[in-house]
Amino acid sequence: MEKYTIGIDFGTESGRVLIVNIDDGSIKGQCVIPYAHGVITEMLPTNDGTRLPRDYALQHPGDYLEVIMKGIPHAIKDANISSSQIIGIGIDFTSSTMVAVDEKGKPLCFHKEFQNNPHAWVKLWKHHGPKKETEEMFKLASSHKESWLKNYGYNISTEWFIPKCYEVFCKDREVYEKASLFLEAGDWIVSQLTGKVVRSNCSLGFKAFWNENSGFPVQFFEKLHPEFKNIVSSKLKGKIGYIGEKAGVLTDEMSSLLGLPKNLPVAVAIIDAHSAVLGVGSSKPHQLTMVMGTSTCHIMLSKKEIHIPGISGVVKNSIIPRLYAYEAGQSAVGDLFGWFAKQVPESLMKEAKEQGISVFDLLEKKASHLEPGQSGLIALDWHNGNRSILSDADLSGMIVGLTLASKPEDIYRAYMEATAFGAKIIISNYEQAGLKINEIFACGGLPQKNDLLMQIYADVLNKEIIVSASDYTPAVGAAILGSVAAGKENGGYDSVEEAVEKMKQPILKTYKPILSHVEKYKKLFQIYQQLHNYFGITKKSWMKDLKSL
Amino acid sequence: MEKYTIGIDFGTESGRVLIVNIDDGSIKGQCVIPYAHGVITEMLPTNDGTRLPRDYALQHPGDYLEVIMKGIPHAIKDANISSSQIIGIGIDFTSSTMVAVDEKGKPLCFHKEFQNNPHAWVKLWKHHGPKKETEEMFKLASSHKESWLKNYGYNISTEWFIPKCYEVFCKDREVYEKASLFLEAGDWIVSQLTGKVVRSNCSLGFKAFWNENSGFPVQFFEKLHPEFKNIVSSKLKGKIGYIGEKAGVLTDEMSSLLGLPKNLPVAVAIIDAHSAVLGVGSSKPHQLTMVMGTSTCHIMLSKKEIHIPGISGVVKNSIIPRLYAYEAGQSAVGDLFGWFAKQVPESLMKEAKEQGISVFDLLEKKASHLEPGQSGLIALDWHNGNRSILSDADLSGMIVGLTLASKPEDIYRAYMEATAFGAKIIISNYEQAGLKINEIFACGGLPQKNDLLMQIYADVLNKEIIVSASDYTPAVGAAILGSVAAGKENGGYDSVEEAVEKMKQPILKTYKPILSHVEKYKKLFQIYQQLHNYFGITKKSWMKDLKSL
Repeated sequence: MEKYTIGIDFGTESGRVLIVNIDDGSIKGQCVIPYAHGVITEMLPTNDGTRLPRDYALQHPGDYLEVIMKGIPHAIKDANISSSQIIGIGIDFTSSTMVAVDEKGKPLCFHKEFQNNPHAWVKLWKHHGPKKETEEMFKLASSHKESWLKNYGYNISTEWFIPKCYEVFCKDREVYEKASLFLEAGDWIVSQLTGKVVRSNCSLGFKAFWNENSGFPVQFFEKLHPEFKNIVSSKLKGKIGYIGEKAGVLTDEMSSLLGLPKNLPVAVAIIDAHSAVLGVGSSKPHQLTMVMGTSTCHIMLSKKEIHIPGISGVVKNSIIPRLYAYEAGQSAVGDLFGWFAKQVPESLMKEAKEQGISVFDLLEKKASHLEPGQSGLIALDWHNGNRSILSDADLSGMIVGLTLASKPEDIYRAYMEATAFGAKIIISNYEQAGLKINEIFACGGLPQKNDLLMQIYADVLNKEIIVSASDYTPAVGAAILGSVAAGKENGGYDSVEEAVEKMKQPILKTYKPILSHVEKYKKLFQIYQQLHNYFGITKKSWMKDLKSL
Repeated sequence: MEKYTIGIDFGTESGRVLIVNIDDGSIKGQCVIPYAHGVITEMLPTNDGTRLPRDYALQHPGDYLEVIMKGIPHAIKDANISSSQIIGIGIDFTSSTMVAVDEKGKPLCFHKEFQNNPHAWVKLWKHHGPKKETEEMFKLASSHKESWLKNYGYNISTEWFIPKCYEVFCKDREVYEKASLFLEAGDWIVSQLTGKVVRSNCSLGFKAFWNENSGFPVQFFEKLHPEFKNIVSSKLKGKIGYIGEKAGVLTDEMSSLLGLPKNLPVAVAIIDAHSAVLGVGSSKPHQLTMVMGTSTCHIMLSKKEIHIPGISGVVKNSIIPRLYAYEAGQSAVGDLFGWFAKQVPESLMKEAKEQGISVFDLLEKKASHLEPGQSGLIALDWHNGNRSILSDADLSGMIVGLTLASKPEDIYRAYMEATAFGAKIIISNYEQAGLKINEIFACGGLPQKNDLLMQIYADVLNKEIIVSASDYTPAVGAAILGSVAAGKENGGYDSVEEAVEKMKQPILKTYKPILSHVEKYKKLFQIYQQLHNYFGITKKSWMKDLKSL
């Protein structure tokens, strides 16, 4: 009898449940459940008429439960296996996505008194409400040279966990007081499955200023506000679980509701992009994984601990035990291409229709006939700000070299190249800090469908790029952690590395640099780098002034 | 009996014949004759299979004659007047458009032996063949500090007359030797009408290194090549006529062919943009006229002679007797909007169709809802290089501040603003050199149809802009010169100023600066100026490198 684990990937718009064979990583069944309420940006589901502020992005926790309740049975049915063949469950989740719950673990938005209060709802990773709060935190932390800042590239993002908690503290003290716990949504799902609160060291480390040696920076919280200090001993309570560990087992109620074996092991949750590293098959030092979707995460593994400015974070034991995981990111990649594809002229839309292909495919086809540098264009890919290495959300995109002969495919190729140059800045930053990179993997939605894009990355980076064949690497990573939670005694694995080796997804293609392109891109990159430094550092006030005029 | 003059405007794609009432400038009749051969860029009309080089732009001189032979009778018919009411003819022409003719005035391309030779055809103003020759001339002239360079903003353009002649000299000595004269096309038309060669001081001064005090720079021509020196005494021969003078009278043959009065006075030809200054009604010092079409000419009148770097030229007596006319220009204005309108997405095209308006009108409508600076975008309008004040054809366009929320109308407005900022650079350059500007007129194809554009210009320049109601100011200017050629004795005028006062076209609207916009645009212009200087001067190698990679 073959054995399987369930991997559940909670994304931004939907949840995906996979049933994965633990011997070879093959996907036996799956089910995708779109969130009924999607991303809530305009009005709360209670529809009380109040418009949400412009930078809010909330979610409905019921949508997550729907993924569990409907998605698991459907996926098992789709796999056509007996549920007794399932030996574990793993969860990955967007992060930091924050849920405020009462003493019973019920989200506060389910309380009638709070149902019209945005701060009682789930704050999605891209909720940018706590801008002011984050600025305040960053000013204080840098003026006091807080030592934990070095673990976060010397920066704080609005998208992280503590800023979201502090926003509630500042903007709605009633909700704050009522909240028994603030939880990462991944950890909340684990608590719903197991009946126990076990916080993942991965999201704590990357998003909550927590460190396995020093814990939370309680004194900093106190400096921020005397009453905020208590958050640690009250609202951030809970056992801390490490990646690769079992958080607990399914409650009997859940087992029977889902038709799953009793006492089924549930893994400690992991951040979605970090889970993709496992699904790709990366578990060794000197490997870097680019998780390329709407945005890109550059995650690498190393034995060394180095504090690198401009990255998103470095956390030990957060993906592979005993290794440090480094995260950096580009804020707009697929999103940039998607935005541009909406700008193309009618004639191009028609041509795509006539050829029966997507606008993306047509643009790529046309762009692939251009030599590097032929269009005379170069772009800065900061259309959604710059995450790494400038950590500046107020920067914006630009394109230079336009002429009356510039065509949409010229501009499209320039944007593809710009994201590759952006990746090169990040990778050079890792290397210059002393991290050696031996292998680069690529996964996410983009690499499988964009041949030219990946060739450009290989040429610009002057490195081979190994592209995963799978679109579902995060969910596979979660299933891998499910198999480790089960352990050898239950037919699973005792180490993450072993599980990765067995369950990693196949390689679609390895892109090798084309020498003549490499040389041309070296020259173009020099210009990119100068534009990057000029607009991002020397004259960064320009882009800020343009935004605030 | 009312009196009329004929004004003929030879443009890039067609010729326009106007019949203008000399008492009030009203247009009584007209006829447009498109050039049958248009702009010849691919293959000669003889169709011998040879492809022209990429930067060639030639014309067929027969097309010009067609404008005369068909256009004049049609326009008179359209006016429904007796031809005896016509007292003069004036001509304006694109410049420098060069015709090589034999000793009888016949263009060399009409000779069978030369019919397949591009150098025997008319070289249109935008023929960019003599790039190398122009570079050679400029290097030599600047290294010898040639004094005439100061009249041309210390620069030489590929589009001028002597570079075109020198191109023939360098590339085809046989054609060069065979040419009895090289003529501006406007002067050639005058010679066809009058049987006499009279060269216009306007085009000689602006395009042929000629000056009324010092003549042609013969010694410089000799330094360029010993045999090129003789061009002055041979191929550039001919009487020089001044703007406002009569070049001659119609030949009897022409009178009878065209059904016009015998001995009808014909004016000395004028450059088209310069003619528009007259049609607009500008004849006084401190007035500036923006002739805004695919590109923009900024022409101003002054009593003072100043040598200003970065302008296209300064010539005395070339528009209004005793005044200096200054010319500067922007290479892409209407062309830039036209290029962008072709890039807009399908949804916008549909919306325009549904509303029954053009894409331009829809873009303007949407852009007019934006406040200055609201889009967060700023552009450099160098999509066709920069004519003034950087005189650099290798510069290219750029746009800064793009985000995933940038819409087509945001970009369109940024381009409109960019051309206004470009105009401000030119106008500030005039003012800083010591030229006072009291009034700004606008004419050409753009201002009448683009309300928002003209308001932006008023706001950016912080000056009133007086927009002419007429689309035909160049042809009216030509008719004005026709009335002065006739002189008072024939019912016309004795001075250009008087004719302008009588025949100038009505004003459509005067745009006044909106104070709150002025303040915002001051801030935006500061950024534009810094980008201008950085990309156009300090780091101009970037745009060149991008083009040549």
